[in-house]
Amino acid sequence: MAPPFLKTREEYQKLVDSVDTFLLDCDGVIYHGPKVVPGVKIVLDMFREQGKKIIFVTNNGTKSRRKLKETFDKLGLGATIEECFGSAYASAVYLAEVLNFPKDKQVYVVGEEGLEEELDSFGIKHCGGSDPEDREFKPPIVWEDFKPDDSVGAVLCAFDSWINYKKMAKAMTYLRNNPECVLIQTNTDPTFPTHGSLYPGSGSLSIGIVNASKRTPLVIGKPNKHMMDAILAHHKFDPARALMVGDNLLTDIEFGLNSDIRTLLVMGGVTPNDQIYGDNPSKTVPTFVMESFGDLAVLAEEK
Amino acid sequence: MAPPFLKTREEYQKLVDSVDTFLLDCDGVIYHGPKVVPGVKIVLDMFREQGKKIIFVTNNGTKSRRKLKETFDKLGLGATIEECFGSAYASAVYLAEVLNFPKDKQVYVVGEEGLEEELDSFGIKHCGGSDPEDREFKPPIVWEDFKPDDSVGAVLCAFDSWINYKKMAKAMTYLRNNPECVLIQTNTDPTFPTHGSLYPGSGSLSIGIVNASKRTPLVIGKPNKHMMDAILAHHKFDPARALMVGDNLLTDIEFGLNSDIRTLLVMGGVTPNDQIYGDNPSKTVPTFVMESFGDLAVLAEEK
Repeated sequence: MAPPFLKTREEYQKLVDSVDTFLLDCDGVIYHGPKVVPGVKIVLDMFREQGKKIIFVTNNGTKSRRKLKETFDKLGLGATIEECFGSAYASAVYLAEVLNFPKDKQVYVVGEEGLEEELDSFGIKHCGGSDPEDREFKPPIVWEDFKPDDSVGAVLCAFDSWINYKKMAKAMTYLRNNPECVLIQTNTDPTFPTHGSLYPGSGSLSIGIVNASKRTPLVIGKPNKHMMDAILAHHKFDPARALMVGDNLLTDIEFGLNSDIRTLLVMGGVTPNDQIYGDNPSKTVPTFVMESFGDLAVLAEEK
Repeated sequence: MAPPFLKTREEYQKLVDSVDTFLLDCDGVIYHGPKVVPGVKIVLDMFREQGKKIIFVTNNGTKSRRKLKETFDKLGLGATIEECFGSAYASAVYLAEVLNFPKDKQVYVVGEEGLEEELDSFGIKHCGGSDPEDREFKPPIVWEDFKPDDSVGAVLCAFDSWINYKKMAKAMTYLRNNPECVLIQTNTDPTFPTHGSLYPGSGSLSIGIVNASKRTPLVIGKPNKHMMDAILAHHKFDPARALMVGDNLLTDIEFGLNSDIRTLLVMGGVTPNDQIYGDNPSKTVPTFVMESFGDLAVLAEEK
């Protein structure tokens, strides 16, 4: 059955009254690239004033929570570090608190400084990542450089603009020679939207390591429930009074469905109208639909 | 039904008498890394003397035919350029003779000099590849560098030890902005055996481009019939009197099956005995099995 498309002030009010915790996707809901979605600042301020909890849930695996906050600050939206939840932080939470990653092991990072910063914040040892030894690779390949290392207990892959053969071969070697070494991807987004186009995303950078190692990776980011487990390890809230808001059926709305949380799809992002209301709609159905998250700003106006 | 395991001189002779053209996988049949398989030199010389055609069929997409010949020469096996057929050459043949690649278009190469050499031999224009501009990439990413280019009519991916984000993003941009631009992979081998271990192979280096571009690639190498089409475009022979010899069920033996050519699996390579004669054998069944291709050397001895 097609989900209700909310349009009136009364429908908005009824929804907002039923929610204590807003889990918000960022790109497509809060902003489109460098532009804040009209009305969103008013909505966020209103919710904060009403004591509602806001958590920005993004698959971005490059930025630490501190960097995500800076992005919000630059856009004039304000945000506390506590409100920011990216897949870099979620991966560190997952390693530290769900997997109880051993203190004497280290994580081989295929990723950038923001991911390392989050691992540091949990005292998780790591190698690779921003180490110039791994970044500044020039062929010819020296095969002897790729040695098994049992101190590596996990390979953690995120967006890494320095991806190269050395990083891939080291990751594969650690995984192949040690069945206890786990393979984790912050997220598997195949593409990355910026500057008005799409470019290879985190999932497309690390799929080669998955393919070569023949491992089934543990994927943290949306739509996987691991992301929700990480959020719930840090934020106490009642899932029945939470709402996941996003513009992407396959990441945001599936994430809500996998986590048993109601969902609100906003249009004007990546989902065309006919995927919801067309003759052959997507099997992924949100609980509610509305045009723009900023439209809730009408609730801040006097009646 | 389990295939016959040939063991006697009489069985060998009967097989050889039925073959005019031997299509030979290299690693695992002719040599193991730097070591020639015992007896193989005698077998090759005997076949050449008997006027049988030998074609070395390898998924190697890095080496030109000239370089493949050098490898054989170094191993003391001798080989003519005509006997060498790698997936780099096969891709150039396919572009030139099957796709009739337009003279005013160019190929964006994610690969190395050997592949460029083969494209040059057919007068196919190309860019990317060994161009230092694409190889020596250092973040930060400049998104404006990735511009659509309608002169690029194909993206051709092979093993490229210089793989980096710039190459992936350019390839994706050309494919995404031009539906007529085709995506070709020389081969999709996920790993690459060398120095006694496995490392990420061609297929694992280009799977990110496939994933990001959401294109169905045209794969040239074994087990795809495109490789046989390319071979048959250059070598005239009767497929009914040909034999594909290899050690890998999924590449070599599938290749024979897809091309309607009899197959001989040799043991001692990557295929364990129980995949053929175990309780739960592979569905890919060779026509014949024998221990080692070098065992045919017995036919060169006097009775």
